[in-house]
Amino acid sequence: MVEQALDASARDRLKLLLATQMNVSGLERLTPPRIDSLTLPTPRVSAPDSLNEIVSITPLDRASHTYGKAYRNLVRARRGDLACAPDLVAFPRDEHELSAILDWCSNDRVAAIPYGGGTSVVGGVEARLEGRYEGAVSIDLTRIAGVREVDRTSRAALIDAGTLGPDLEEALRPHGLTLRHYPQSFEYSTLGGWIATRAGGHFATLYTHIDDMVESLTVVTPAGLIETRRLPASGAGPSPERLFLGSEGALGIIVRAWMRLMERPRFRASASFRFGDFYAAAGAARLLAQSGLFPSNCRVLDEREALVNSLGDGSSSLLLIAFESADHPLDAWLNRALEIARGAGGEEIASRPSVPAADDTSEKWKDMFLRGPYLRDALVELGIIVETFETAIGWDRFEDFHREVHRAAAEAVTRICGEGIITSRITHVYPDGAAPYFTVIAPGRSQSHVAQWDEIKAAVSETIHSAGGTITHHHAVGRDHRAWYDHERPELFGKALASAKRALDPAGILNPGVLTG
Amino acid sequence: MVEQALDASARDRLKLLLATQMNVSGLERLTPPRIDSLTLPTPRVSAPDSLNEIVSITPLDRASHTYGKAYRNLVRARRGDLACAPDLVAFPRDEHELSAILDWCSNDRVAAIPYGGGTSVVGGVEARLEGRYEGAVSIDLTRIAGVREVDRTSRAALIDAGTLGPDLEEALRPHGLTLRHYPQSFEYSTLGGWIATRAGGHFATLYTHIDDMVESLTVVTPAGLIETRRLPASGAGPSPERLFLGSEGALGIIVRAWMRLMERPRFRASASFRFGDFYAAAGAARLLAQSGLFPSNCRVLDEREALVNSLGDGSSSLLLIAFESADHPLDAWLNRALEIARGAGGEEIASRPSVPAADDTSEKWKDMFLRGPYLRDALVELGIIVETFETAIGWDRFEDFHREVHRAAAEAVTRICGEGIITSRITHVYPDGAAPYFTVIAPGRSQSHVAQWDEIKAAVSETIHSAGGTITHHHAVGRDHRAWYDHERPELFGKALASAKRALDPAGILNPGVLTG
Repeated sequence: MVEQALDASARDRLKLLLATQMNVSGLERLTPPRIDSLTLPTPRVSAPDSLNEIVSITPLDRASHTYGKAYRNLVRARRGDLACAPDLVAFPRDEHELSAILDWCSNDRVAAIPYGGGTSVVGGVEARLEGRYEGAVSIDLTRIAGVREVDRTSRAALIDAGTLGPDLEEALRPHGLTLRHYPQSFEYSTLGGWIATRAGGHFATLYTHIDDMVESLTVVTPAGLIETRRLPASGAGPSPERLFLGSEGALGIIVRAWMRLMERPRFRASASFRFGDFYAAAGAARLLAQSGLFPSNCRVLDEREALVNSLGDGSSSLLLIAFESADHPLDAWLNRALEIARGAGGEEIASRPSVPAADDTSEKWKDMFLRGPYLRDALVELGIIVETFETAIGWDRFEDFHREVHRAAAEAVTRICGEGIITSRITHVYPDGAAPYFTVIAPGRSQSHVAQWDEIKAAVSETIHSAGGTITHHHAVGRDHRAWYDHERPELFGKALASAKRALDPAGILNPGVLTG
Repeated sequence: MVEQALDASARDRLKLLLATQMNVSGLERLTPPRIDSLTLPTPRVSAPDSLNEIVSITPLDRASHTYGKAYRNLVRARRGDLACAPDLVAFPRDEHELSAILDWCSNDRVAAIPYGGGTSVVGGVEARLEGRYEGAVSIDLTRIAGVREVDRTSRAALIDAGTLGPDLEEALRPHGLTLRHYPQSFEYSTLGGWIATRAGGHFATLYTHIDDMVESLTVVTPAGLIETRRLPASGAGPSPERLFLGSEGALGIIVRAWMRLMERPRFRASASFRFGDFYAAAGAARLLAQSGLFPSNCRVLDEREALVNSLGDGSSSLLLIAFESADHPLDAWLNRALEIARGAGGEEIASRPSVPAADDTSEKWKDMFLRGPYLRDALVELGIIVETFETAIGWDRFEDFHREVHRAAAEAVTRICGEGIITSRITHVYPDGAAPYFTVIAPGRSQSHVAQWDEIKAAVSETIHSAGGTITHHHAVGRDHRAWYDHERPELFGKALASAKRALDPAGILNPGVLTG
């Protein structure tokens, strides 16, 4: 769907761009090791013979299931540090095989770590066991994959949890339908992973969190199967789906879901505006979020973010607005949005009135957005620290909060790396607040990359927490956010969750260290 | 806000209308007893002296907190049946007094039954104890009331849980804001009750369930206080608010919430259409629900429902469409909706293009809608069985499901009452399904009203369950829906909830019999 990597000349251009911003000469290059040079710890446990067919202990499988895609993971992988590799990798093909794996894990005290696309940026798929388990199995769910059933009338489909983003969209396309959920990891992540981590899609308003698209769930737990009833809505007690949304594999393993879909868009309209000030652009985004127009895109980029994305010369913040519809032309929607943005002091750069939609894949934003991870890989290889963090906050506190977090990040980067670049954008807007997103790019010191990033991350996380934000808007908690999550979550709610976990996972083998336990 | 009761001539007209449909002569009248004629059981428990100031044992307080507003409650109240009256009624003024009451209940094994406006139609506030408790206290929360703080920028307010609908809107009006949540019980129900029961508002699409308007919650549990962080969105673990939404007082007692608000509407547009067939009208409603236009109203009334509401002559089903906005004129929205409804075979009765909004209270729908309960009181007094039930189902199964439930209700009414009227409407529409609503009106037999209704209700509930619907879309579970809820809810989810309850309510005193335990 997009280029599979940045070519050498793109890497050079990038290096040149960075060189104008900070001193990147003489950094240690981090090149990936060869698979035959890897040293893996000897497996501590072995699966019963009955599971032989679906279990692997090859170095390639174990190495490739050791980490997610956090910066700290990329560095460790490049250093060949595989100390926390899972002892085995299992590839169940259905819920019965999955149940059999969980039975073995419960009986033998083996940690069971669900693995979808492996794109966690928060340590959600790593076997950091702290010695309380006999071993760990990474459960790769990508063989439980495919669109099983499509209900055209209700616009919904029953989809297996291991289905990757592109496969899912490809299977829905002949029906004229789309899940329309594009997290940045889209190409490599799975439906089950999105649900388990409460993923946020590319779109800025309304149906963007996967939460709202889940009609029903089938979940395998060590205590048995849970299948919720397929309903458009229900007021019968606390929502069972919501307990598993965000459960990150600690309460059960999602195997399939009925998902709400949309018609493929037939009309599009868009506009972009320049603002002298990031907070003025944010103010316009607030008015749009509160207008009831529900733009599909309403993104704010600060000056540096705009520059890095080749949008402008780095002197202005940008507001990007877009509308999509499968039903109607969007002139009235766009025109009112233009009025709002102009009224808020925006200078119009371009606007594209309502037009029939071209094929999705030609859209520039999607290319750029999805290319982010490749860009990051290239920087990591150059020895540069590059990572993102994100949060959400109410509009009343937005400006103070954003300044404070930005200042904390800048202070930490200067203190720890000497210099660096921080860019920021708003990825999602709500009537009552927004989700700011930050990217840190700084020169790494040989052998200290991970420690440096961890120190920066701790400083910004403390500030986010004490200033009233959430430790994660859409990256999930995993193991890396756990300390701050424990403070953010009401203590008694944590106890209720732990108690619910005991009912579903009596041996405590599901993704230990995540959420609870 | 609306007339406080039906006058005598309205009652006579109503009786005349019913007389043309069924034989209502000679029915036993059910007139309310005088308060001084009531016999209440002697209180089994007494509160500690420290709670004297906030506890009442007067017959009026105990009698008025014995029941909700289900038909079976109205009949029993009129018969002076107060066998399950609470032993005491407590009126805490803040969370500390509430905690003190729960401490006493936990220590002395007294059932603690939260009571907001007392409008439960599912037995949610009744002390049906089955002998496992020493006694019961009804905890009236209406002294914990008021709008505490308004955040104009984020459009949100901190509101105490015991605040009644009209008081809440009155306090927000000077700020130009509204919660815009109008369940049929609006005048008599409280914010806390809406949240605890996952109430549905009047509006047909988008922000209609109270669930989506909750920003954060403060909940008192026997184990301590839970206060969730105020955020526009978060991906940090399972949502704590969602555990308490629909918890019906069994997991904790909600004392206040930050609620998402809207600007008061400035523009309105509406239209109505006639269809030869209820299912054709439902088909049009489906297209509107899937259009992305988000009408504020998109209601379908069958022929009889239209007649009872004085809309038409009873020969056609109706589709009522409306739009509201605080931001923009609605011509483009209405025009596209008109195209859709016409294309689906609707005959336009009237359309009112986008106009500046008049004051809310002048709207005819709200009068009619909110007068429903008074109408019902008048019928009950005439000895007529009158009750409603509601559910939700996907569009793919809508027509078959609706026919089957309607047939089951008609069959039960004929079998049990000899004759009767069943009317139906669609109250809420979603892209993937709808919420059908039914009203049953039938002649009651002396002394058997409750038994007759219970038998009808059991028959329709069985059909709803076996045909794949939910036992409740917005009336909650309470005690009356419990048997079907237990079948609808995955068994292991029930165990997880019971386990969570043990962490929050170790003595099991919170609203026993509701949800779990």
